[in-house]
Amino acid sequence: MSRIIMKFGGTSVADLKRIKIVAERVKNEVDLGNEVAVVVSAMAGTTDQLVKWVENASPNGASPNSASKDHDKEYDSVVAAGEQITSGLLALTLQNMGVEARSWLGWQVCFKTDGLHSSARIENIDTAKMDAALKAGTVCVMAGFQGVSEEGRITTLGRGGSDTSAVALAAALEADRCDIYTDVEGVYTTDPRIVPAAQKLEKITYEEMLEMASLGAKVLQTRSVAMAMNHKVRVQVLSSFTNKPGTMVVDEDEIVENKVVSGIAYANNEARLTITGVENTPGVASNVFSLLAEGNINVDMIIQNRSLDGKETDITFTVPELDLDKAQKILEEAEHISFRDLFTNKNVVKISVIGVGMRSHAGVAANMFKTLADKGINIQVISTSEIKISVLVDSAYTELAVRSLHTAFGLDAVE
Amino acid sequence: MSRIIMKFGGTSVADLKRIKIVAERVKNEVDLGNEVAVVVSAMAGTTDQLVKWVENASPNGASPNSASKDHDKEYDSVVAAGEQITSGLLALTLQNMGVEARSWLGWQVCFKTDGLHSSARIENIDTAKMDAALKAGTVCVMAGFQGVSEEGRITTLGRGGSDTSAVALAAALEADRCDIYTDVEGVYTTDPRIVPAAQKLEKITYEEMLEMASLGAKVLQTRSVAMAMNHKVRVQVLSSFTNKPGTMVVDEDEIVENKVVSGIAYANNEARLTITGVENTPGVASNVFSLLAEGNINVDMIIQNRSLDGKETDITFTVPELDLDKAQKILEEAEHISFRDLFTNKNVVKISVIGVGMRSHAGVAANMFKTLADKGINIQVISTSEIKISVLVDSAYTELAVRSLHTAFGLDAVE
Repeated sequence: MSRIIMKFGGTSVADLKRIKIVAERVKNEVDLGNEVAVVVSAMAGTTDQLVKWVENASPNGASPNSASKDHDKEYDSVVAAGEQITSGLLALTLQNMGVEARSWLGWQVCFKTDGLHSSARIENIDTAKMDAALKAGTVCVMAGFQGVSEEGRITTLGRGGSDTSAVALAAALEADRCDIYTDVEGVYTTDPRIVPAAQKLEKITYEEMLEMASLGAKVLQTRSVAMAMNHKVRVQVLSSFTNKPGTMVVDEDEIVENKVVSGIAYANNEARLTITGVENTPGVASNVFSLLAEGNINVDMIIQNRSLDGKETDITFTVPELDLDKAQKILEEAEHISFRDLFTNKNVVKISVIGVGMRSHAGVAANMFKTLADKGINIQVISTSEIKISVLVDSAYTELAVRSLHTAFGLDAVE
Repeated sequence: MSRIIMKFGGTSVADLKRIKIVAERVKNEVDLGNEVAVVVSAMAGTTDQLVKWVENASPNGASPNSASKDHDKEYDSVVAAGEQITSGLLALTLQNMGVEARSWLGWQVCFKTDGLHSSARIENIDTAKMDAALKAGTVCVMAGFQGVSEEGRITTLGRGGSDTSAVALAAALEADRCDIYTDVEGVYTTDPRIVPAAQKLEKITYEEMLEMASLGAKVLQTRSVAMAMNHKVRVQVLSSFTNKPGTMVVDEDEIVENKVVSGIAYANNEARLTITGVENTPGVASNVFSLLAEGNINVDMIIQNRSLDGKETDITFTVPELDLDKAQKILEEAEHISFRDLFTNKNVVKISVIGVGMRSHAGVAANMFKTLADKGINIQVISTSEIKISVLVDSAYTELAVRSLHTAFGLDAVE
């Protein structure tokens, strides 16, 4: 007997017919003798509708990042209704199939979060009651994405937060496995839409998954992977539309032999900024990035060129494409930063090769750069971590770059 | 400065445009220096949608009267989401107009109810926090219709329960007035669609309103009127679409001189059953009505004819039209009740004249029966209380009966 958390996203519970299919999957696990807790998102489209209503009701404070805490508290209370509905409907569907089930809302499990409404962080989960219910054989259907603050108001964990709810619940309930059902069959060596020879990975390490998630392979929410890693939660990513096993996200020591490179990721939602003629003295770069941080802009890749004369320098960096205009405005209006020109470019893509095996294998960067050079692809910016190398290239080369690297690192499926 | 509860039903908050209008009404009361708590229903249509989902998810236990408590707990959790959404949206709209506001859910105010899910009764309201918020000048927007059980599950008060939420909140917060906004301008002497000369009443007593409400004048939920009477809450019924004063529902001593008859009500959602050839011994009628009560069927008017031979009798009574088939089935399948024939008739209407003045005036019944006789309307069943006389007649005579009685009791407006 195992204790399993199953998480279903918005498309998996989009209507009553799909909820029925989900209920059957849950019943299968119950019939196998497992204790099952389920975490559900809102029906696909519901959250968008609720967010739209909130924005229309409150055009002055529409952004979830609004300074107005009062606004965000109401935002959370309205939007959390979506998961409340699906959790009840799934519990009912299960009951109707003869499976003991009940729904749980964030405040009912004491899913305690901080007070950072609309993007709250989980602090503590009091699972005593749910634990008892599971032991008594009841399927516990938890409304994902939501918690409760110290003050007793409903909080939400930010978009995609149901993955995090599931992993947090798995950690708190000491579950044997956390199955994240989604619309893909698992984690692939790269996007199968670009590389038909992409292979589903049987296992991937937390670290690799973390890089994959944050680099644009939209399978799991980054926060949930970090949480799984910290609490050693065994996560499985699998499809809610097929019955195939998915990809297990596990600790490195569970993987007997690592490939050097596990996957190729790409992210085309970044934009590049370059400022030229910046004074080359200590503190200038710090000024630039402090200002952007104050503006809540996440800077990703950074490169600073040493200038020939030693007096001036160029700084190039990337920001989320959505924040490009804001970043440009901040720099142009900054009084204590002077530069000659500011260039921007949205037609860029970040391509990354990822693999924990890199730690013990030299030559990955060389192989990557040579592969791209052979195809005539110019590298604009490079950034590296222990287990990944990312390059920024012209977005026109996205497919070519991903395919070439996939082949070069031996990831293509053998027919 | 007064403390006012304002309640808005589903049509008043049907969309964001109407919610804006509601917010403006609320702001007006705030600008007058009043402390304001608002109770809202779900957007018109939302509750129906949610109930439909619940029924489809759980065809085996669809009825809110289902024996399955588990089902009803989920029903409540799903359906309560509707009011959760409107309370947040109205709070946001108010904030956006510069009015301090926050939403409150049933469990956040400790709107404690019993565990009778889907038709729970309020036991206790812990208003300390809301009281403090009102004193601090915050508009409190309460999600109507919902509470929380001892067990910590969401409960609902039954359809139309938001009226009851509002009156209960008014009592607990010791409000000076509870304004129930609806789609009519107040309580009329009768249905203006039938009698154009019907007049809006400036005041009506709780007792009269109670009869009006339970007899089919669908203005206020019966339970809410009973609660207002018990707690002496001054209730005003008024339109959310005009700015006219409505009808005050008050204690009898606030009304200087009572008219003998205040209004004529009719209810065409009843059906008549007659069983003939019933053994005329003690306990037979009791058997019949015990069985129906066990089947959760509300019997309204009852008449028992003495038979000529003293051995057999006929019993005639009315039940809600919706329960007619069920009632018939119960009687036909009952083993210890024997009768010769069972007749049913859905084409009946109950017409009532209501007025606290009746207590001190004789002749109301005589006047009523003569008026109907003069028009050739046959009375099938009669029932009376201290302040009302009801008759059951063929539904074809509805308009004629109501109009004639309205004129006969001097209720027509003088042009």
